[in-house]
Amino acid sequence: MTNKQLQSAIRELKKLKIGLFNKDFLLTWEHSDDEIKAATLVTDILKEMHKAGISTRLFDTGLAISIFRDKSTRTRFSYASAVNALGLGLSELDEEKSQIAHGETVRETANMISFLTEVIGIRDDMFLGEGNKYMREVGADVQEGHEKGVLHRRPSVINLQCDIDHPTQTLADLMQLKSHFGSLENLRGKKIAMTWAYSPSYGKPLSVPQGIIGLMTRFGMDVSLAYPQGYDLIPDVIDVAKKNAKQHKGSFEIVESMDNAFTNADVVYPKSWAPYQVMQRRTELLKMNDKQGLTNLEKECLANNSQYKNWECDQKKMQLTKGGKALYMHCLPADISGVSCQQGEVSKEVFEKYRLATYAEAGYKPFVIAALIVLTRIQNPAAKLQSILKRKRNRAI
Amino acid sequence: MTNKQLQSAIRELKKLKIGLFNKDFLLTWEHSDDEIKAATLVTDILKEMHKAGISTRLFDTGLAISIFRDKSTRTRFSYASAVNALGLGLSELDEEKSQIAHGETVRETANMISFLTEVIGIRDDMFLGEGNKYMREVGADVQEGHEKGVLHRRPSVINLQCDIDHPTQTLADLMQLKSHFGSLENLRGKKIAMTWAYSPSYGKPLSVPQGIIGLMTRFGMDVSLAYPQGYDLIPDVIDVAKKNAKQHKGSFEIVESMDNAFTNADVVYPKSWAPYQVMQRRTELLKMNDKQGLTNLEKECLANNSQYKNWECDQKKMQLTKGGKALYMHCLPADISGVSCQQGEVSKEVFEKYRLATYAEAGYKPFVIAALIVLTRIQNPAAKLQSILKRKRNRAI
Amino acid sequence: MTNKQLQSAIRELKKLKIGLFNKDFLLTWEHSDDEIKAATLVTDILKEMHKAGISTRLFDTGLAISIFRDKSTRTRFSYASAVNALGLGLSELDEEKSQIAHGETVRETANMISFLTEVIGIRDDMFLGEGNKYMREVGADVQEGHEKGVLHRRPSVINLQCDIDHPTQTLADLMQLKSHFGSLENLRGKKIAMTWAYSPSYGKPLSVPQGIIGLMTRFGMDVSLAYPQGYDLIPDVIDVAKKNAKQHKGSFEIVESMDNAFTNADVVYPKSWAPYQVMQRRTELLKMNDKQGLTNLEKECLANNSQYKNWECDQKKMQLTKGGKALYMHCLPADISGVSCQQGEVSKEVFEKYRLATYAEAGYKPFVIAALIVLTRIQNPAAKLQSILKRKRNRAI
Repeated sequence: MTNKQLQSAIRELKKLKIGLFNKDFLLTWEHSDDEIKAATLVTDILKEMHKAGISTRLFDTGLAISIFRDKSTRTRFSYASAVNALGLGLSELDEEKSQIAHGETVRETANMISFLTEVIGIRDDMFLGEGNKYMREVGADVQEGHEKGVLHRRPSVINLQCDIDHPTQTLADLMQLKSHFGSLENLRGKKIAMTWAYSPSYGKPLSVPQGIIGLMTRFGMDVSLAYPQGYDLIPDVIDVAKKNAKQHKGSFEIVESMDNAFTNADVVYPKSWAPYQVMQRRTELLKMNDKQGLTNLEKECLANNSQYKNWECDQKKMQLTKGGKALYMHCLPADISGVSCQQGEVSKEVFEKYRLATYAEAGYKPFVIAALIVLTRIQNPAAKLQSILKRKRNRAI
Repeated sequence: MTNKQLQSAIRELKKLKIGLFNKDFLLTWEHSDDEIKAATLVTDILKEMHKAGISTRLFDTGLAISIFRDKSTRTRFSYASAVNALGLGLSELDEEKSQIAHGETVRETANMISFLTEVIGIRDDMFLGEGNKYMREVGADVQEGHEKGVLHRRPSVINLQCDIDHPTQTLADLMQLKSHFGSLENLRGKKIAMTWAYSPSYGKPLSVPQGIIGLMTRFGMDVSLAYPQGYDLIPDVIDVAKKNAKQHKGSFEIVESMDNAFTNADVVYPKSWAPYQVMQRRTELLKMNDKQGLTNLEKECLANNSQYKNWECDQKKMQLTKGGKALYMHCLPADISGVSCQQGEVSKEVFEKYRLATYAEAGYKPFVIAALIVLTRIQNPAAKLQSILKRKRNRAI
Repeated sequence: MTNKQLQSAIRELKKLKIGLFNKDFLLTWEHSDDEIKAATLVTDILKEMHKAGISTRLFDTGLAISIFRDKSTRTRFSYASAVNALGLGLSELDEEKSQIAHGETVRETANMISFLTEVIGIRDDMFLGEGNKYMREVGADVQEGHEKGVLHRRPSVINLQCDIDHPTQTLADLMQLKSHFGSLENLRGKKIAMTWAYSPSYGKPLSVPQGIIGLMTRFGMDVSLAYPQGYDLIPDVIDVAKKNAKQHKGSFEIVESMDNAFTNADVVYPKSWAPYQVMQRRTELLKMNDKQGLTNLEKECLANNSQYKNWECDQKKMQLTKGGKALYMHCLPADISGVSCQQGEVSKEVFEKYRLATYAEAGYKPFVIAALIVLTRIQNPAAKLQSILKRKRNRAI
């Protein structure tokens, strides 16, 4: 991107109708096409500024909070990178996995951590029906705190992965597709295969496949979702995908074989997940702390999984894709056969071929998070980005 | 606060005799009235600057260390917010609860963490006779390090809660009172009921009630301390309260019923604590790692506590206060009957009425901590605050 | 150091041939004499700037990552101080001790944490043959990531202690010697006794003694390494020391008594370590998670250690040194007889006499780390340091 291109991206941004200021970002499908487009533009702009060595600092001081209710390395560092790039300081609130606090405790904590806070990033994907709900609760609590004069500013809550969606991941995926095909417009008519894949573990979240079908159907893509019988996603999200496909003149189908989905695909995204009915049972067992029940469920699920070991993305399956050279995508870490496990989601050969592409895909995430912070914290993002471009401050002083 | 009021606060600050530069802040009663007043003025100034979106950055780089010898969320985030607002980076030294290091280890560690450090915030409230002593040890160690040329600067130690006092909390409480009654002068003649309250747990620190009676007696308030027989505070602090009340022409009394203390009170602060004799026994048992002894002590104390379940701040008791509308205060989290426990310190109705007021009370704490850093690190705080007001740098650039 | 001296140090720096830009710093003996000298000059310059209250911020934003595969307080805070002083934000990646990740996981993680990262500091000293190897792996991985367009910048890996060397410690030790004797040139002909000392623990890393004999032999010092039979260091490093001594016209000897090494020494560095053969066996047992084997090994080693309790640096031994007043050095924490243990590396009297000197020695470490960051991240360090001196920005604004 030249400076001219940066300027043109900012001009494009200026034209969009964006209503994200002081709001939360929890599900991509709650936001308008203009807002999603704005997110991609700001991501591009910030990434190019970083590449050019231009400082993207927008805050002299201020806090960004992260709440990780699950272990995380990747997202943790993406968030840390994003908030640092904007000049915010990071404070992490680590909660035990099992501690699902609700009600007064959440209400109080949400305010207690927010007195000088701009943004709260939350990852909570273990319990079906809980993660997104918790984020909304935090958002409502700081809203009340701000309205009642407790908080000078109303921090924005950003979903760093919940039980329903993983917007910072899928927007990074979208950036990868935008880069791969040249523009968002070029995605129209391209086929993406979002398919289940075998993994020797069980209980992986649904947020990525759900997020992908919810987002990519908005760009006129032909979205083919494939999974073995019983590995259903949350029905409401299926409805979102259907509605989006219809509205944006793309298509959405559910098929029962990887081969079927891969056939003629431009993009493949093979990834393990647990059936949502299993996640529901698991959530109940976790809540009751029923260890025997959890062990039994794991055994049952792994036995079930093992029927579908052939759901592996290998070279033979890749041959089915358009010209045999679809773009392989993954949110990482992938279960790579013969590398990170005996048999997994993807063969060693296929992964190695696309390894650096998946790194590049992940490389968008810090900038996506930064973009969502810019859009939710800055009233006029185009003008602000213009002004930090103009000030020509180098990141290395 | 208008800009004019900010200017007037700075002028007021300029008149005060402040000797806190390069010193520690461990107990409010070790500091002069002018210094306490300065703390309230700087708190107000920093809070108003934050509200107005003005950057309060005073350091281009520099470290703030925190040492938490107990779990903490609230204070941790207040400290993180405060140091960030001044431009310092935060590094946390987490010690195991049980590890009470003394002597050479403390002396060495205090210097090792201080080479580029401005301030060391310490929370150590579990062991009677230990927390405050430890803070003084750290202070003496960095003093020696500075005098002997090991440290370029002598960092200040700030008490984030010890076994004796909790100055950042009680100064936040004082700010809440100042705001509620309009000025510090208006506190004269107001009655505050600092009373024990029932909680289903035991072993809560004494620092808040001790800090409150040690601080509020300096403003001519009528301080009424109430607790069931046996729930004594440290005798030395009682003496401080008596002396302060006499000197500042207020009053201090100890009564044996919540009703008595609440009667005609302008402010009530009902909060559980453990008798100091129990804390002494507990400290010994903890030191000997006597688990059976600790279990027995807990049983004994909970049984004793349970005699006083009627020490709950409910609507009926609130009716005893002046006009039935005293200000309810709490350092949070409160044990709320029917919300966070079956029966606790305060009824659901009373707490809900004052919930946002307690959030606002807590909201002073980050700015109190920042104010203590400003006063201990900056030689001429009034001039410095004047200059950062003049530079008109926005926090969001 | 006056401003004139700072200017002269910068001029000296300008003359040196430095090839560290975008490189890693893993072993002192991989770097030229000019580069080592540059490290000492930049350390001095940064330390003096800090002392004078001048801001050393070189980055407006940017991340520094630390990976600690062992517990650490001292190095953790030195690193935190260093990166803060340069304006970088710190993110820590904490791995479990036992988790020795290699291959794909390392390759992926190295890239995932590096998208906006300037520097990665790693401490990994527990497993012989592993720590340094791991650092090289990370370096190679980010090199690939940068070359293949995944990373905008190629972060530098800095060794914060491995199984072979501890360069930030030994460079701090070198600074202490430079300060003690007035200049690096004055080290020529001075005798340093790097000797094993008794400790009631076992399994201490070899990195400090190895680093000392590998570095100090480059300054024409007479390096006397002493240890009881069987407490050998890694043979390759012994070869490095021999080669260095020959090349720089100093000397290197291995003797079998502390007395022998101390005799006529200008500097003594008595410190416990485990024989490298023991470390090899321990590494195998740790890898196999053989707890019984580890317990047996510990017993055997402690029994062996206990034969050498007289390897203690006491006043009598100090009398053997030049004029009885050699400089005592230690990387801290020392095992001090009668203080931190019953019997240990050094007597109470000797340690107390040199206690503040060891603190001052440690005080160089944050600035050494900062210097290595400057040298590996800035293309023209002399010009950059000149420019931040010129801008005359105070650290306390």
